[in-house]
Amino acid sequence: MERLKNKIRDIPDFPKPGIVFKDITPLVKDPATLRLTVHQLLHPFLGREITAVAGMEARGFIFGALVAWELGVPFVPLRKPGKLPYDVQSVSYDLEYGSAELQVHIDAVDENDKVLLIDDLLATGGTAKASCELIEKLGASVVACAFVVELDFLAGRQLLRDYEVHALVHF
Amino acid sequence: MERLKNKIRDIPDFPKPGIVFKDITPLVKDPATLRLTVHQLLHPFLGREITAVAGMEARGFIFGALVAWELGVPFVPLRKPGKLPYDVQSVSYDLEYGSAELQVHIDAVDENDKVLLIDDLLATGGTAKASCELIEKLGASVVACAFVVELDFLAGRQLLRDYEVHALVHF
Repeated sequence: MERLKNKIRDIPDFPKPGIVFKDITPLVKDPATLRLTVHQLLHPFLGREITAVAGMEARGFIFGALVAWELGVPFVPLRKPGKLPYDVQSVSYDLEYGSAELQVHIDAVDENDKVLLIDDLLATGGTAKASCELIEKLGASVVACAFVVELDFLAGRQLLRDYEVHALVHF
Repeated sequence: MERLKNKIRDIPDFPKPGIVFKDITPLVKDPATLRLTVHQLLHPFLGREITAVAGMEARGFIFGALVAWELGVPFVPLRKPGKLPYDVQSVSYDLEYGSAELQVHIDAVDENDKVLLIDDLLATGGTAKASCELIEKLGASVVACAFVVELDFLAGRQLLRDYEVHALVHF
């Protein structure tokens, strides 16, 4: 996946000093590499039953919507509080400092759904774990979580140990 | 476009009393209708030169990324301040109360680019106009703006009178 790595740009000290941010906009700007990325993301799930793809705002909307499109299944947006207009289910989770909340429409998925969760980056895994719990709160099951990038040193995979986890490139 | 309208849900009093919000999540949840929507969005531009598609966070990422994917051109995310990690160009614009800012990476497009702007909703047109100005600040040209929904009574098309504007359904 060297070709993907070449399209991920390091931004030192963003969003705060000491953090090296993995910028995926060069990848999204390159149609051939984006195509490779989306098809690699969905490849482990060909021939398996996926009935919906969920993605977290905002970068997860890009990759999630494309994977859902290619699989031909519904796309389910997971959003920050106050963004989804209909009745929502919510989950709170801890951040490094303070806490955050994630929401989904109550009719987004149901107990018959087998959901693939997509995001650009697996860091500590907090947001992804909350996303899985949110999907399960609606009675659906999480088939797997698939990420473009995994930051191995943050051990997010450990937090997601109850789930099948895939990532295309590792730092 | 009755089929699209049937997948757009009215949410009264969201985000505040007196506003009827057009909820596009039922459309995004229905793969066949989403496919129809994306192909109708890009149809006016088949055979014309589009070198990039830009979309505003967060719902614009869903439709913008899919139109870019189908056209085989780069997707350019336009974001709220503090979200894009690399060097940015910015534009400020007035809201009903106060003002807002939109940003784009300085290397997202250049003077050779012919950009199609995509968003889910044309309301007052303030965000779309700011988006066009942002793209032009980087030297690129805006070919057109295409929306899933246009709220005719808000006259956003008037604010965008210098641009080609398309919308699939009107309320």
